[in-house]
Amino acid sequence: MNSITLLQPQKIAFGEGIINSLSEDAILLNSNKILFLVATPLLDVLSTIVKNIELKNKEVNLIEYRFLGEPTFAQFNLLLKENEGFNPDCVIGVGGGSVLDCAKLLAALINNSQKLKDVVGIGFLNGRSAKLICVPTTSGTGSEVSPNAILLNEETQAKSGIISPFLVPDACYLDPVLTVTLPPKLTAETGIDALSHCIEAYTNKFAHPTVDIYALKGIQLIAENIEEAYKNGKNIEARSAMLLGSMYGGLCLGPVNTSAVHALSYGLGGKFHIAHGLSNAILMPEVLRFNLSANPKRHAEVARALGITTQGNDEDIAISGIKKIEAISKSCNIPKHLADIGVTENALPELADIAMKVTRLLKNNPREVTKEDAINIYKKLL
Amino acid sequence: MNSITLLQPQKIAFGEGIINSLSEDAILLNSNKILFLVATPLLDVLSTIVKNIELKNKEVNLIEYRFLGEPTFAQFNLLLKENEGFNPDCVIGVGGGSVLDCAKLLAALINNSQKLKDVVGIGFLNGRSAKLICVPTTSGTGSEVSPNAILLNEETQAKSGIISPFLVPDACYLDPVLTVTLPPKLTAETGIDALSHCIEAYTNKFAHPTVDIYALKGIQLIAENIEEAYKNGKNIEARSAMLLGSMYGGLCLGPVNTSAVHALSYGLGGKFHIAHGLSNAILMPEVLRFNLSANPKRHAEVARALGITTQGNDEDIAISGIKKIEAISKSCNIPKHLADIGVTENALPELADIAMKVTRLLKNNPREVTKEDAINIYKKLL
Repeated sequence: MNSITLLQPQKIAFGEGIINSLSEDAILLNSNKILFLVATPLLDVLSTIVKNIELKNKEVNLIEYRFLGEPTFAQFNLLLKENEGFNPDCVIGVGGGSVLDCAKLLAALINNSQKLKDVVGIGFLNGRSAKLICVPTTSGTGSEVSPNAILLNEETQAKSGIISPFLVPDACYLDPVLTVTLPPKLTAETGIDALSHCIEAYTNKFAHPTVDIYALKGIQLIAENIEEAYKNGKNIEARSAMLLGSMYGGLCLGPVNTSAVHALSYGLGGKFHIAHGLSNAILMPEVLRFNLSANPKRHAEVARALGITTQGNDEDIAISGIKKIEAISKSCNIPKHLADIGVTENALPELADIAMKVTRLLKNNPREVTKEDAINIYKKLL
Repeated sequence: MNSITLLQPQKIAFGEGIINSLSEDAILLNSNKILFLVATPLLDVLSTIVKNIELKNKEVNLIEYRFLGEPTFAQFNLLLKENEGFNPDCVIGVGGGSVLDCAKLLAALINNSQKLKDVVGIGFLNGRSAKLICVPTTSGTGSEVSPNAILLNEETQAKSGIISPFLVPDACYLDPVLTVTLPPKLTAETGIDALSHCIEAYTNKFAHPTVDIYALKGIQLIAENIEEAYKNGKNIEARSAMLLGSMYGGLCLGPVNTSAVHALSYGLGGKFHIAHGLSNAILMPEVLRFNLSANPKRHAEVARALGITTQGNDEDIAISGIKKIEAISKSCNIPKHLADIGVTENALPELADIAMKVTRLLKNNPREVTKEDAINIYKKLL
């Protein structure tokens, strides 16, 4: 069996209303200065918790995260500046993937002589002095358990990954109640993103038995619940399952990670500013069709976890699985074609060029992807 | 879905030879004074690693763990005394469950005004200042990932659990190479112990989907590999699978834990000094027969994970699973009867009395166990 290093928060607290126990967390009780980075819609929910914390004679600095879209280097540096003079021993992020990614980087770069530009890439962070707690309010990125943060370099229009063991939070609080107000469109797009984390880890060239169990459980939970969460956002059981599914997707990201779906999606995010989940949702079926021949058995096992029960050979079962993903996207009103989101044929070579540069993910793909392959995949989706 | 808090080391490093990367661990690099507690047979292996660490200008105190059997309160306090005057910022345990349990408690009680007797039970530890790394050399207790430590109170002859989130290590290194010299008898007994952790968590009254995936994977890995590891200890693939299976058993212990097998085994350990794994191996089939009616579906799913492929109703499949466990024990030459290990009928009421006191585990059992039930289970095994 291959070697592997699994990293995750030492504490994962899950459950309806679990956020109310945050102010009693041992990390918090042992901290004196606490920085909150909170997405605007969560400010009300957090106000009672912050009051409880202040009653314990802790100093709190609460910064509202108010940016839209993928956070840029400039936006992150602005957050860093807003916190100047306050040296927290604990950072708490509450929000979607962008908020959590910024909270993770704040925890690492406050009190650190390294600058953001020094740490872009894999393994450049020297350490992290502040403790870090993440509270996700979407079921998508799995950032609350992963060693990754993704920002947009506004100069090059390229998405840039900062990947380090020091970005794994110490604890995360998964409260499905915080996700019930997420609009249906975002529920679907972020949910498919989480699904793609699991599928790309399971069909990965570097798949590992210890990660497979997360991937299969995540696929199953998301496939069974995404449509209900989309149609009836108040269904707390569906929201709970989605939140766990998304966490399992996050646990796939560190040790195994994603592959060509995510690589081909980079340009759609950076150039066209298409939401990350939406890009992946559109790309996934066609990339899986391209990959299938490299490992039919694994693709069939993905289909089984998606709920396919029909008999047949691995290829047939795998195809049924891909169709199931397309059916999920359709019933969640996710567009099927790149043209639907404003991408035209003349953009494809540049998109493929951007994808080819994401070698850290392409190397994981079960089948080699050339620039021509990438263009062909995009073309089929026009 | 019920609320749950999952605790585990932030880093789980697994693989053949992974122990050689221990001296480069970030925790170690950030420590100045390091305490090693090492089982006698591992002293040689550790000497090179300790030298590498000393080359980095770290101060090392290495204590040899030389006790046999379940560690007593007095033995632990002796270890504490041997370390007096050395205040480590990192404790590293290398050995079987007893060594790891003592290392965990050393990390928590060094530099702590609390004494051992103050922290027996659930949740009494106030904190832990030293970092903690565990390196298991048996595949059994799963102590390297769990919040538990078990000592023997020599005055009452009762096994005493110290359970606290502060006993969860920060990192663990799972190196199958360190387990190849484990004698066949210990391999089998500790392996069945790990199997019982997984089975008792899966059939538990408080079973949870997030723990089920660990339980099923552990059952599968152990069932597929325990006989090979017993017969051919040098088979590194079998040893790898056993070590992972044991870790999954440990991940079951914190949030869900074991039930009647472990409760009924307490007196056998405390009174008769029967090895923990051996007690559990003898008890498990009969306890499962007793529990089966409370949840045939879950017991059938355990059988499926054990490798049973026959068709039938849940009861039949579950019974096949129990017979599979008996067959494994038989082929590993584990005795089947309590009489084989010196237990006679007149001891049974006292054994049952001891078991009845282990309410923290009995409450988890899928079926209520009265004193009479316990005596009947013991009787069937005489």
